[in-house]
Amino acid sequence: MYFDVASTAPLHPVARQALTAALDEGWADPARLYRSGRQARMLLDAARETVAAVLGTRADEVSFTASGTQAVQLGLLGALSGNRRRGGHLLHSAVEHSSVLHVAERHAAAGGEVTVAPVDRAGRVDPAAFAALLRPDTALAALQSANHEVGTVQPVGEVAARCAEAGVPLLVDAAQSAGRMDVPAGWSLLTASAHKWGGPPGVGILAVRKGVRYASPLPADEREGGRVPGFVNVPAIVAAAAALRAVRAEAERENARLHELVERIRARVPQLVPEVEVVGDPVRRLPHLVTFSCLYVDGEVLLTELDRAGFAVSSGSSCTSSTLTPSHVLAAMGVLTEGNVRVSLPYGTAEADVERFLAVLPELVAGVRAPLGLDLPAPKAEPVAETSPPRAEGRAGAESEERQATDEGGSAGATSVGAGSERPEASARVTVIDALGKRCPLPVIELAKRIGEVPVGGTVAVLADDEAARLDVPAWCEMREQEYAGEAPAADYGGDRGSAYLVVRRS
Amino acid sequence: MYFDVASTAPLHPVARQALTAALDEGWADPARLYRSGRQARMLLDAARETVAAVLGTRADEVSFTASGTQAVQLGLLGALSGNRRRGGHLLHSAVEHSSVLHVAERHAAAGGEVTVAPVDRAGRVDPAAFAALLRPDTALAALQSANHEVGTVQPVGEVAARCAEAGVPLLVDAAQSAGRMDVPAGWSLLTASAHKWGGPPGVGILAVRKGVRYASPLPADEREGGRVPGFVNVPAIVAAAAALRAVRAEAERENARLHELVERIRARVPQLVPEVEVVGDPVRRLPHLVTFSCLYVDGEVLLTELDRAGFAVSSGSSCTSSTLTPSHVLAAMGVLTEGNVRVSLPYGTAEADVERFLAVLPELVAGVRAPLGLDLPAPKAEPVAETSPPRAEGRAGAESEERQATDEGGSAGATSVGAGSERPEASARVTVIDALGKRCPLPVIELAKRIGEVPVGGTVAVLADDEAARLDVPAWCEMREQEYAGEAPAADYGGDRGSAYLVVRRS
Repeated sequence: MYFDVASTAPLHPVARQALTAALDEGWADPARLYRSGRQARMLLDAARETVAAVLGTRADEVSFTASGTQAVQLGLLGALSGNRRRGGHLLHSAVEHSSVLHVAERHAAAGGEVTVAPVDRAGRVDPAAFAALLRPDTALAALQSANHEVGTVQPVGEVAARCAEAGVPLLVDAAQSAGRMDVPAGWSLLTASAHKWGGPPGVGILAVRKGVRYASPLPADEREGGRVPGFVNVPAIVAAAAALRAVRAEAERENARLHELVERIRARVPQLVPEVEVVGDPVRRLPHLVTFSCLYVDGEVLLTELDRAGFAVSSGSSCTSSTLTPSHVLAAMGVLTEGNVRVSLPYGTAEADVERFLAVLPELVAGVRAPLGLDLPAPKAEPVAETSPPRAEGRAGAESEERQATDEGGSAGATSVGAGSERPEASARVTVIDALGKRCPLPVIELAKRIGEVPVGGTVAVLADDEAARLDVPAWCEMREQEYAGEAPAADYGGDRGSAYLVVRRS
Repeated sequence: MYFDVASTAPLHPVARQALTAALDEGWADPARLYRSGRQARMLLDAARETVAAVLGTRADEVSFTASGTQAVQLGLLGALSGNRRRGGHLLHSAVEHSSVLHVAERHAAAGGEVTVAPVDRAGRVDPAAFAALLRPDTALAALQSANHEVGTVQPVGEVAARCAEAGVPLLVDAAQSAGRMDVPAGWSLLTASAHKWGGPPGVGILAVRKGVRYASPLPADEREGGRVPGFVNVPAIVAAAAALRAVRAEAERENARLHELVERIRARVPQLVPEVEVVGDPVRRLPHLVTFSCLYVDGEVLLTELDRAGFAVSSGSSCTSSTLTPSHVLAAMGVLTEGNVRVSLPYGTAEADVERFLAVLPELVAGVRAPLGLDLPAPKAEPVAETSPPRAEGRAGAESEERQATDEGGSAGATSVGAGSERPEASARVTVIDALGKRCPLPVIELAKRIGEVPVGGTVAVLADDEAARLDVPAWCEMREQEYAGEAPAADYGGDRGSAYLVVRRS
């Protein structure tokens, strides 16, 4: 069972037919004037019309790129360059796709300024807070239509309206929603990727509204309106357009069906598996995507177990052998970055397959957790009520909160172990857990093991040097209803730089 | 009959099979660890091994791009950036593909320096002359393996050896030869394009030798060794590799066969059509490509006629309605830029189809020429002997020659019409042809009509403002064995800037 359509979708049957036909009829260079060239041009023009109609734009505003990533790179760099008279400021949300973040890094390295707009605990930007970060020198703002890791749908329409008021162009990365949900009007640049909707790989979309300033970041080329260099891949474009039309036609029915299946996963996983947090906005979300985090579990190990059981799912997890960086999306949301499983259902996913997934999951998670020797509570009998109010702050908010907490944590540590540069020691009032050199999820596992020893009101300080622990300990506290008191740099007590005491008060 | 494989090749049957299979087996994200992802990764790795083996490089030196143009852009910009400590100087030949020229323009606009190495009348660089343009601050040199408009094979091995002596990396654009002919060793970066060898569109090759300094010009991305951003198009890459292996296996046999067919065109067209110049190196050439220029003919009109007769051919012609810029390749060679027809034969082209082409061509050219009322000599009974020595100078040489000629022409004009700012008038000694506002090929047509009126030793001055006329009048003289005496800016005689007297002495 392939449950990772957010990475890439299998080729839609309609796209396969169109591709085969277009390899016969549209293989020639559409810039040539002989018959086969004219035929390729006609197919290309028709595909452009189709894509424009589905995406709610004009054919002459649509360029075909080689990938969604290329569309994002060209769109951002081209609009930044075209609007550089306004200034060099770029605003984007904290949960954009890595392609946006990488362009922002490049922009900052080249002397530009970047502001990252925070999100709430559901991964959603607040339109007013986003708009408040616009500046007179903002050349471009960027906001995804929906998040690729947790499925949260962003308030694109409201943000677009506020950007328009401020006269700032808005780039909307619609990679996860194009074909499934209409993009609200008001965007200036729109990007998408065909292989996410069942088209072939090799086709991205960059739509630039008439009147939006754009200066190509690449050397000149006469193709695709001067925006995308290289031989135009007509057969793949034809197939991409055919798939887009097909999925759009099925969307209403399939969205409803997949929404119900995802709802089932959202409700049942916390009933079946102890210590699980379902993340992302429960209501304003993509119909086919759900993400949950299993406490104390290495996401990659769980994915391997699920693969053995026949399920292909993905993870934005940190704490894997390949990447030690926590998911920037989950970090910005302030939720657990460990044991993360993203399930994204292709069109046509059978109910029975979802049921089979729910049947095998509890055992697999239990198997991964077994060697840890944790005494876990039984899973909640009732579905998790998604009642906790969204956090008004996000990444930026979390940072200031952390700074504030640090002071508190520092005081807590200092109070318990005395002032000065001595290292905190275990005492009647503070249990110190030495998790130095232990990679996530080990620090949280140690904390979970020891918290029971601590009296209510007592304090535990987790000494850790894994960056992910600084995200996961507070997230664990939120989830287990413990009080996170903040963080004290270990260097203040003679410890290594980069390590910290993460202070928890037992509730 | 499709005779334009130099633009794009029809999909090779082996590539189609591989594509279909890989859409089933290799559609998933090769970065994922579940079964379908691992399978895509295996197919990708195997394709990389195949491409590396055929191109004579190592698999870990090969990156797959989205097109040949992208490969050229990334290769040039990445190597220029990686070697910027050497300096900001780029050297390339005058007959590179436009993608190279466009990067060079961008490089120059950003403050870099560019030197264009001249070619001889056959379109070939001289290795010693090329090497003499290398400088201590040369960051990169670029030379195509073979020319895309006239088929001339470049002395890549000799140039590579000289670049290596100078410690300058060499990028070889092998778009026209990859799969057909081995690229000589010694290159630092190699680029190619799969749709030129019968692979699908959407796949380019960028190979960078170990140890060659390279800094990606694009924002970071983890794919293709950090060189090419975006979802990897595994099915197309698998098909491209399969096609490359297949055409390489057929190359020896097909090259010999197509070489003979092209030889036939080279020999027969001048026998069948009056006033034709076959261009490009007659010996050191691509086996499947031949270009000839038909005097007094608008290339686009001839292409349309050939299309009606069922032949798809191409033209690097100037003087078309869509582009008023003469082909930079033909201009650099100093050959006629008008009435240009490029025939490039796909693998498997039947002898009978070439014969059919030779059968219809004379009539079609005569039909296009008929309204001009020219009295043309009969075509040469014998094949054109390619005996004229290659011109040692090329574009740069031609420029200095032009400057020199200009002085002569100026003197000639001044002598005949008196000094000062008066406009030259027709006199016993000078026939002035006013071709102002007349687009190529009209100036040359007028010249051909009037030259008969002029006594041997007499002078004709063509007053023209079409840029192409400045190339075509000298080329016509060379071909018709008339003496081109040079050019005098009309502004010197009170005429408009941009127009010139092109002075011819009847031989």
